[in-house]
Amino acid sequence: MNDVRTTPAKTTRDGAGDHLALDSQGPPMGEAERADVLRLLGLIAFTELATFTRLAAVATGAPTPAQHLHVVRLAGAALDRQEQILRRISELGGDADAEMLQFTGTFDDYDSRTEPQTWWEGVLKGYVGNGVADDFCRIAVDGLDEQTRALVVEVLDDNRSAELSVAVLGEASEADTVLASRLALWGRRLVGEALGLVQHLLVAHPALGRLVVEGARKHQESAEVDQAWVFSQLTAEHTRRMGRLGLAA
Amino acid sequence: MNDVRTTPAKTTRDGAGDHLALDSQGPPMGEAERADVLRLLGLIAFTELATFTRLAAVATGAPTPAQHLHVVRLAGAALDRQEQILRRISELGGDADAEMLQFTGTFDDYDSRTEPQTWWEGVLKGYVGNGVADDFCRIAVDGLDEQTRALVVEVLDDNRSAELSVAVLGEASEADTVLASRLALWGRRLVGEALGLVQHLLVAHPALGRLVVEGARKHQESAEVDQAWVFSQLTAEHTRRMGRLGLAA
Repeated sequence: MNDVRTTPAKTTRDGAGDHLALDSQGPPMGEAERADVLRLLGLIAFTELATFTRLAAVATGAPTPAQHLHVVRLAGAALDRQEQILRRISELGGDADAEMLQFTGTFDDYDSRTEPQTWWEGVLKGYVGNGVADDFCRIAVDGLDEQTRALVVEVLDDNRSAELSVAVLGEASEADTVLASRLALWGRRLVGEALGLVQHLLVAHPALGRLVVEGARKHQESAEVDQAWVFSQLTAEHTRRMGRLGLAA
Repeated sequence: MNDVRTTPAKTTRDGAGDHLALDSQGPPMGEAERADVLRLLGLIAFTELATFTRLAAVATGAPTPAQHLHVVRLAGAALDRQEQILRRISELGGDADAEMLQFTGTFDDYDSRTEPQTWWEGVLKGYVGNGVADDFCRIAVDGLDEQTRALVVEVLDDNRSAELSVAVLGEASEADTVLASRLALWGRRLVGEALGLVQHLLVAHPALGRLVVEGARKHQESAEVDQAWVFSQLTAEHTRRMGRLGLAA
């Protein structure tokens, strides 16, 4: 399951110039590059599958039938996004289900360390965890071919789930300061675990590390950028996101 | 939530001739008739929502990642069917979410009495329960306007879930006679509870009783048909369905 290539793929791609920015009309990607892209898409699809599972579980505890239905629809939307990403994997010649399912178990440790005790904690977990995952992917896709990049950005922009979270959590924590401080604490715990999970993924899948640094360099137009910069970005975005809830990060 | 109309709507409709067979190009339905149709569509949509919830829960216990994914997709398909039915409710001028959500809680008693203890029991529960629900709806829609009937039949024909069940359960019970006899027993328990649930629904929602008898009469081209005939049909179909698994009903 781990990335077993030992050749320094980044060097190869540096020589390939703007291959990465070509859309599907352009020349085909190199094999090493394609394998990296498939790995990232597999992770994104798997993240959507995990989001589906989390939301389907959260739905059963929703306080009202209308909220239940709303969360069920968010779960359905996550599944639609998963299928869109899987279609792109197939278009790129990958084995879609297999690329996704190789990540099976990846989030288990994270999940067991961050089991929500209340409906609110469950909603915040999704908001924080998906936020970090989205930010990571947004950086990583900056290095991808234009068609894949556009698809992923479109998928990530489907932020209905985050909007619901902001509405639900913002209202609740404004009305209840005890809840607000508990959730702020929970948010710090969640982001620590989420960043640990990203670190774990980068070690287990060097392809992801290559892509995210490459994307970050394009994004910043600087060759100085490294993984540490990526983590500082993820932390800054998390702080901004908690601010949207009126909670201290 | 109960049907509060006290006028004998069936008599009214008897006078309306073949109103019921008209498609959307024809004259509008009568108000009483429309209320009955909306009630049935609300129940069908709610059944799909319940199927979604059941499958999403079953998915987490799937023996393999591939089966997990398969069941997740079945859950997504149930949600798609729910949305199709809700769109039809809107087309007919109903408040779609409200028509569905009025059934909230309807299956709780059934569910608590038929909680599956194993993955196999969970799969069989879906097969038996959805089978009875589908058969009931197939009879009831025979009395509806053609466009609604066609939509519902198309939705019910989406039988991927049943096919999976037949494959999974048939194989397992062929290989394990102890499991087979346990599942046969479980199937008898399930159908008893499911028929009890139908009885409960007919009492709580007279609209459903009117539609199913009307549909049955059209189906049989006989005015002699009553609710008892409907239950005998449901039982016969269940027996046939268990036979497809190689299990005695």
